Amino acid sequence: MAASRLRQQVYAALPVGEEHRGAPWMAALIIANVIVATATTLLQSVPELQPFMAEHTTLPVLCGSIFWAEFCLRLWTAPECDRLWGKFPLLGKCGSYLVSFHGVIDLLVCVPLVFLLAGFPPGGWLSLFGVISLFKLSRYVTSLELVAAAMQNERHTLMALVLTLGLLLIVLSTGLFLIEHEAQPGQFKSIPHTMWWGIVTLTTVGYGDMSPVTLAGRILAGMTMLIGIGMLAIPTGVIAIGFANERRRRELLQTWKIVSSLPLFKGLDANWISEIAGLLKTLMVPAHVIVITKGEFSTALFFIVDGEVEIDLHPTPRRLKSGEFFGEAGLLQNKPRSATVTTVKPTRFLVLGLAEYQSLISRAPDLRKKLEETASQRTRESR
Amino acid sequence: MAASRLRQQVYAALPVGEEHRGAPWMAALIIANVIVATATTLLQSVPELQPFMAEHTTLPVLCGSIFWAEFCLRLWTAPECDRLWGKFPLLGKCGSYLVSFHGVIDLLVCVPLVFLLAGFPPGGWLSLFGVISLFKLSRYVTSLELVAAAMQNERHTLMALVLTLGLLLIVLSTGLFLIEHEAQPGQFKSIPHTMWWGIVTLTTVGYGDMSPVTLAGRILAGMTMLIGIGMLAIPTGVIAIGFANERRRRELLQTWKIVSSLPLFKGLDANWISEIAGLLKTLMVPAHVIVITKGEFSTALFFIVDGEVEIDLHPTPRRLKSGEFFGEAGLLQNKPRSATVTTVKPTRFLVLGLAEYQSLISRAPDLRKKLEETASQRTRESR
Amino acid sequence: MAASRLRQQVYAALPVGEEHRGAPWMAALIIANVIVATATTLLQSVPELQPFMAEHTTLPVLCGSIFWAEFCLRLWTAPECDRLWGKFPLLGKCGSYLVSFHGVIDLLVCVPLVFLLAGFPPGGWLSLFGVISLFKLSRYVTSLELVAAAMQNERHTLMALVLTLGLLLIVLSTGLFLIEHEAQPGQFKSIPHTMWWGIVTLTTVGYGDMSPVTLAGRILAGMTMLIGIGMLAIPTGVIAIGFANERRRRELLQTWKIVSSLPLFKGLDANWISEIAGLLKTLMVPAHVIVITKGEFSTALFFIVDGEVEIDLHPTPRRLKSGEFFGEAGLLQNKPRSATVTTVKPTRFLVLGLAEYQSLISRAPDLRKKLEETASQRTRESR
Amino acid sequence: MAASRLRQQVYAALPVGEEHRGAPWMAALIIANVIVATATTLLQSVPELQPFMAEHTTLPVLCGSIFWAEFCLRLWTAPECDRLWGKFPLLGKCGSYLVSFHGVIDLLVCVPLVFLLAGFPPGGWLSLFGVISLFKLSRYVTSLELVAAAMQNERHTLMALVLTLGLLLIVLSTGLFLIEHEAQPGQFKSIPHTMWWGIVTLTTVGYGDMSPVTLAGRILAGMTMLIGIGMLAIPTGVIAIGFANERRRRELLQTWKIVSSLPLFKGLDANWISEIAGLLKTLMVPAHVIVITKGEFSTALFFIVDGEVEIDLHPTPRRLKSGEFFGEAGLLQNKPRSATVTTVKPTRFLVLGLAEYQSLISRAPDLRKKLEETASQRTRESR
Repeated sequence: MAASRLRQQVYAALPVGEEHRGAPWMAALIIANVIVATATTLLQSVPELQPFMAEHTTLPVLCGSIFWAEFCLRLWTAPECDRLWGKFPLLGKCGSYLVSFHGVIDLLVCVPLVFLLAGFPPGGWLSLFGVISLFKLSRYVTSLELVAAAMQNERHTLMALVLTLGLLLIVLSTGLFLIEHEAQPGQFKSIPHTMWWGIVTLTTVGYGDMSPVTLAGRILAGMTMLIGIGMLAIPTGVIAIGFANERRRRELLQTWKIVSSLPLFKGLDANWISEIAGLLKTLMVPAHVIVITKGEFSTALFFIVDGEVEIDLHPTPRRLKSGEFFGEAGLLQNKPRSATVTTVKPTRFLVLGLAEYQSLISRAPDLRKKLEETASQRTRESR
Repeated sequence: MAASRLRQQVYAALPVGEEHRGAPWMAALIIANVIVATATTLLQSVPELQPFMAEHTTLPVLCGSIFWAEFCLRLWTAPECDRLWGKFPLLGKCGSYLVSFHGVIDLLVCVPLVFLLAGFPPGGWLSLFGVISLFKLSRYVTSLELVAAAMQNERHTLMALVLTLGLLLIVLSTGLFLIEHEAQPGQFKSIPHTMWWGIVTLTTVGYGDMSPVTLAGRILAGMTMLIGIGMLAIPTGVIAIGFANERRRRELLQTWKIVSSLPLFKGLDANWISEIAGLLKTLMVPAHVIVITKGEFSTALFFIVDGEVEIDLHPTPRRLKSGEFFGEAGLLQNKPRSATVTTVKPTRFLVLGLAEYQSLISRAPDLRKKLEETASQRTRESR
Repeated sequence: MAASRLRQQVYAALPVGEEHRGAPWMAALIIANVIVATATTLLQSVPELQPFMAEHTTLPVLCGSIFWAEFCLRLWTAPECDRLWGKFPLLGKCGSYLVSFHGVIDLLVCVPLVFLLAGFPPGGWLSLFGVISLFKLSRYVTSLELVAAAMQNERHTLMALVLTLGLLLIVLSTGLFLIEHEAQPGQFKSIPHTMWWGIVTLTTVGYGDMSPVTLAGRILAGMTMLIGIGMLAIPTGVIAIGFANERRRRELLQTWKIVSSLPLFKGLDANWISEIAGLLKTLMVPAHVIVITKGEFSTALFFIVDGEVEIDLHPTPRRLKSGEFFGEAGLLQNKPRSATVTTVKPTRFLVLGLAEYQSLISRAPDLRKKLEETASQRTRESR
Repeated sequence: MAASRLRQQVYAALPVGEEHRGAPWMAALIIANVIVATATTLLQSVPELQPFMAEHTTLPVLCGSIFWAEFCLRLWTAPECDRLWGKFPLLGKCGSYLVSFHGVIDLLVCVPLVFLLAGFPPGGWLSLFGVISLFKLSRYVTSLELVAAAMQNERHTLMALVLTLGLLLIVLSTGLFLIEHEAQPGQFKSIPHTMWWGIVTLTTVGYGDMSPVTLAGRILAGMTMLIGIGMLAIPTGVIAIGFANERRRRELLQTWKIVSSLPLFKGLDANWISEIAGLLKTLMVPAHVIVITKGEFSTALFFIVDGEVEIDLHPTPRRLKSGEFFGEAGLLQNKPRSATVTTVKPTRFLVLGLAEYQSLISRAPDLRKKLEETASQRTRESR
């Protein structure tokens, strides 16, 4: 029982876990450890530093110990993790962790310490285990999720492009080998050798260690370069469009979440939420503009997507930011606005207009009753 | 008669043919054969392996035989293929196959066997026939269709860009030749020689085998590089937009197909389908959200584009996936929902709202009768 | 009078002029002449061919004469050209032609003949005049117009990007010069010398004739390369979006032209056309689908943007292609369709629905009368 | 008091300040000074020119003096600048200027003069101060604002991409070091040395000073190049989409500003403006088309976004350009148009249709009264 509670606490503190006080410090420790381990690995490979590094093994041993500690704690707390269900039901949660991407990485980076303690010199193939600890950092970089989702959606097209590149690489290299082999038998020894030239040229890297000298070879090489430009252009376009689609998909989801999170619409079914989400309009307003004038009649509920507004309340004005909303009381009771609202920064709203709202509730008397109850309750409570 | 039936069977088994049990095995055989033939060709060009390869010709002969067999079967079964009609009516279907892209490739890859059996050594120009067998694989890569259609739509612009690149190549190379010829007469021998420098620079490959040394030459070369960046940027933008347009075009077609495939709307004309397709709204819903509550009144028909929902039926819940729909009974009869529907994954719906549906049928009493008949019939049958 | 008529004829025959029988032949002659002149110029620069080319000057003289003839004819017929008005009212049309882009090119390519006849050897700086004849071809490449318009719209941003690149080039080169000067005084002689390294690296060309060897130099060079990637990414994005906007702008214009070209709406003001254009919906239909069934009641007017449909008329069916329309009689008279219409290819329509049309004419009784007159007149005439 | 007025005058004349007569001349002087200072710095680094430049120090001293003068004036007039408020309230406006980007640059470029007068030779590390004067020019390049805002919006994704590139750089370089170290111990000395190869290859620069020779090394290098292409494609896509979103955001803001700037709608709240902005439609009209015919009944108010129209008034026609509007009188009074309006160039309008306008004011009698008052007042005044 106590062990179970301790395990929960430890899990919550391990980044990226629940919101525990210790989590940021643990994250800092783990990231610092990865950076130190990688830096040590890089420096171990420098010939001038090797004698020095071979003597001073305290740091590598310390890093390795922290990796081991992290791995053991993660393995122990795996049963607390909800995301690990379902993929490999036979393996249980600990087993699922061990075969997951992060589990494999966490285990692999523990390998060098064993060899180090067994007396093997650092460096060599062990350094590979040192640098893959960098993949542990992918837990903390969440901004790439959108890019990854975009590439995931377009994976069939991108894979087909890589296959096409491979096909072109072989055919063009064979052609250039046949043309250039006689002129430069030392350079263009065989088709596999010529494929090195091919990939260097198709990707527009162009080292210049192999380049054709005959007229026919140069014409074929010129065509290869043009094809290479095309091969660069297509995935760029594909990824750009995939990225735009993924972002639009997430915006639709966000609108949905905004509507369903409004207290006014709490407890409604997805079909009503969808109806209401469809009625919202996006509105951009510059800074320092009056959105609502006190005493005027209401026309809309305003939800702030980003930006900031100020409500002119007595005695202290109140500021609303991204995620907050105003104007819902007026929408339901059709009485004059009780305060003036002004934008502080350029602000993007989602607006539910009075006309759209009325056409919605006229079609659904049940919804009207529900909404008015919610609203009168809110008015009594605040503002 | 028996021959004709056999031919049909063989045609169905030849990939990419009809849905025959043997087709996947045939595809695997053909793809494996292409890979083996290409690998053999690549290895034959390696000087160290040439004596060995010259002795062991069983594998090339086997590959060549399979190519011959495939070609003969495809030629024989060509009359079964519907796609070959119309292009060359005079040649008949067998002739049309022979002059089609795949027919030419299928025939060309049969060439090496003939020379091999005639005693010619492998390698040399014959290896080109070996590697173009890779083009046979284009039958199986369907994901590039969208990219190809996008480039097809923008072909005029892309062709004009290639012509512009050629024009700039000649003019810039002439300029650099005039500037650099005196300083490096060995390198910049003539304008055609300088064009090699031009294409290497414009495509940003940059081998470095030829580069200007004079001040004027380097200024012109710097401008050439900037133009090269521009020449890379334009086709990327053009392809990206072509790709986006092609995808949107296909989405419009898909919405059309979804509506016309619904049993409710079966047998309607394109003009009605178009009216209904225009009324559909896209709706994104996160996972584990209630879409419809049992006992509530209906507001919409939901069509699942991608994702998954669960219908809470007794005794076993039922799951609906991409391509299925629900809620159509309620749309027509305005009675309470008979079951609760919840999303299992993030799901994208196309929704036909009640209000839109009613305004549609109020304008067309004929349509209403037709739809109600279809619906009552479906209700009697299932769900 | 006769001279004037002759001039009109000649102008019409000169490409790209009016629709004259001779124009394609003239275009072919001029394009062939440009290609021959350019090829001659390129070959004159090859040392091995120079004695041969110096002896045989018939071809250059012939090309030059044709250039002179073209120039004189274009100058003479300039008064027939409408596009030359307005830019330089003081110069008149002939003067406007002489200072226009094409006029300058047409004149410059005439220069080599003069020197050739004066006994100067071919080649040298004269070859520049030879290759710029390629710019004459820009008269015939119209597909680049969209790209040019897109770049024109984004010119401020693109120019600012080039300036930024120049700024970064100078600052980064100064930095690398300070770092690398001591290690490689022969290579990194001065800041202007180092700027050659800078432009080669920022554009990712990478000749490799100058590259840093010190640690600090390589770190700065790595940052320069990353900045170079960024400098490649930004204009690509800017051009792609400019291209998309330009295309959308042209599509809006095209919808406008389609509506105003329909006989039904001939003679309406722009404000009515705009109202109607706003009511059109885009509709994609796959091939072999019934768009209208004979005997059903009408719901829409269909305008074919691209694709093809077949009207099932007795005794011979009739095909309609891009730019044609059908269904307008039914829209006005609300009587059953007189024939079935089926798509032959995947077809994109612009559809004017009955409901939208009726709400339009209910608001404007004048418009109704006008349209019904036009329609009844058309029905009497055909179909 | 006089000092304060003088300071206001000086502030207004300093670019980019208020609209003062002297501002363009001051801008020209400052830009010229930056260019001269940079050119001097570049030339000072050329070995051949160094004796000459060391003797003639008048120009550097003059440039430095102007920089000092500019800096002192800007520091003195800082209290006049409104943009400097708020960031560092403790420092005051002069302090805020000193720690702002431009303040730091303005101060740094003053450094060389001090050393020069103290007798230090020009060149060396001082040249860095010379070239960073180029950053002063960023005050005058406003077109990059859109690009900068787009990159600002996507900064998390772009930063994550740079981190990913760093991660891949270290892992791939470690791999190649392990493979190639034995074959080329002189080139691939250590992992940090190999990282130079890695960045040169990932960015597709490809100097060719280090390149693998073993088969395994070349395969890994080929994969590195493909990853490099991907790393180029992703930021391009991200920036393109960020640019498109930023532009759309600004267009929404612009529509808002257009509506709120119309005299008809002056003094309305943001919620009414938003309602009206949502009713506007974009309309593209080619040149030389009648938009409104005299005597016809009104249907819309036309706002010119770009392009030009001509109103056929007696005795002299009047031209309206971007930012002007027409047709508002007819919208309110429903009487025949008093003049014909024709487009002179292809013109983009924002149109407020009669139907949309009427449905708007029917919902809000207050608004109607307000608008009719404004309109009748305008009609009396003009047109």
